[in-house]
Amino acid sequence: MEELFIIKVGGNIIDDDTKLKSFLQLFAVLKGHKILVHGGGKLATRIGEALAIPQQMHEGRRITDAETLKVVTMVYAGYINKNIVATLYALQTPSIGICGPDANIIMAHKRQNSQVDFGFAGDVDEVNAQAIKSFLDQELCVVVAPITHNGNGQLLNTNADTIAQEIAKAMSVFYHTTLIYSFEKEGVLLDANDESTLISKIEPVYFQQLKAEKKIFAGMIPKLENAFKALEKGVGKVIIGRAEKLHALVEGETGTVIVAEQATN
Amino acid sequence: MEELFIIKVGGNIIDDDTKLKSFLQLFAVLKGHKILVHGGGKLATRIGEALAIPQQMHEGRRITDAETLKVVTMVYAGYINKNIVATLYALQTPSIGICGPDANIIMAHKRQNSQVDFGFAGDVDEVNAQAIKSFLDQELCVVVAPITHNGNGQLLNTNADTIAQEIAKAMSVFYHTTLIYSFEKEGVLLDANDESTLISKIEPVYFQQLKAEKKIFAGMIPKLENAFKALEKGVGKVIIGRAEKLHALVEGETGTVIVAEQATN
Repeated sequence: MEELFIIKVGGNIIDDDTKLKSFLQLFAVLKGHKILVHGGGKLATRIGEALAIPQQMHEGRRITDAETLKVVTMVYAGYINKNIVATLYALQTPSIGICGPDANIIMAHKRQNSQVDFGFAGDVDEVNAQAIKSFLDQELCVVVAPITHNGNGQLLNTNADTIAQEIAKAMSVFYHTTLIYSFEKEGVLLDANDESTLISKIEPVYFQQLKAEKKIFAGMIPKLENAFKALEKGVGKVIIGRAEKLHALVEGETGTVIVAEQATN
Repeated sequence: MEELFIIKVGGNIIDDDTKLKSFLQLFAVLKGHKILVHGGGKLATRIGEALAIPQQMHEGRRITDAETLKVVTMVYAGYINKNIVATLYALQTPSIGICGPDANIIMAHKRQNSQVDFGFAGDVDEVNAQAIKSFLDQELCVVVAPITHNGNGQLLNTNADTIAQEIAKAMSVFYHTTLIYSFEKEGVLLDANDESTLISKIEPVYFQQLKAEKKIFAGMIPKLENAFKALEKGVGKVIIGRAEKLHALVEGETGTVIVAEQATN
């Protein structure tokens, strides 16, 4: 099987034109098939504020009312997605920018939660791996915005980390997959304010222990839970680390490597 | 050669959710390969106003400064494009929503004009017919937003009528093409306020005569000039007419049919 990188790039990189450009330069020269999943950063929040749409968050997740859905669709699937694709083309990397409804790549349903109404937030049901493969077969890099649809004409706002994980799982039928969560930190840190406390490898037992001892930054827990789920479902490798070090991350030379079980070396 | 419909749908239809839905229902059941090119309607203007971005027009064309480019990219390539694709999917019509930089389907350059600085307005250089064909081969309907790129990372705002014409010309290498401009009127009218004055057929000599006698609504002239250019470059048929009558338009039973030369029947 051929190799495929699924790379999520985080909001803080997206928000900074210079950082984004540098990241895309690194991404462009990566050999092989690749999928880039981008979040939205703070631009959606700024546009929402400018349009006087009140923003509501619940435990770090945006509550997506109809007006907010309009804004995130505009910002994620329009502005950010198309600028990334145009920049990649300038870097000799032919790409296609799409989201859930396009070629039906990601179908989702409106999140049900008796406690909190998340509005038009989508939880992924199915990734159309064959459709994504057909773009990769055309030597296109696939750039995915975190908007999905329910098949009945309703767009849904979906967490970009989750989308990256779901795509990585689905594509593992066809490729040796490596899922990389790239962001503004060295990886998973014991002390969120001290980059030298990088944990270079986490397996399930250690993760449970860290969680029990509350030694992991809360925002990192869903990312790690996503990572373990991905490994269970056939993803080859999951690595979390600094976007500026993309090449070293890909080589496993830096960042936090998530492994399914204790290494027996 | 197989048949391909390239259908432009105008702003007044896009602006009205009910009209757009009805139009997409007609579009969805059209048999054969099809490409939908949509404009942006007034939503971009409304969003621009809400964001306090001054809008400038010159002879019906928007002057696209950097902030306006951001708005049209958000609205056209994001909000409108993705909602159309999600709606088509609900109508059992698998589609992909893309614009210029995606798979490099439309390359353009910044318009040069010594009289007026149109800002980030793009004039089309090349359509990647092979890339568009590859989507049609996958039984996808292609939905195109009127945003192009220059190959150096710059997005450009481009007239949707022109995009439809350029795509129709380029695709004529592979298909029997029919280019349809669908909008809120019966077709080309002798009196813009009287739908009964529909001109059912126009060829070049009659067009020159109508133009000389100032009998054509000024806004219609670029559309007709586009139509004649398209016919010169291999497009099979060009028809202008009411979006609500899409099926009759396709059959040539209503609207204004533009023909390359005088019929000799």
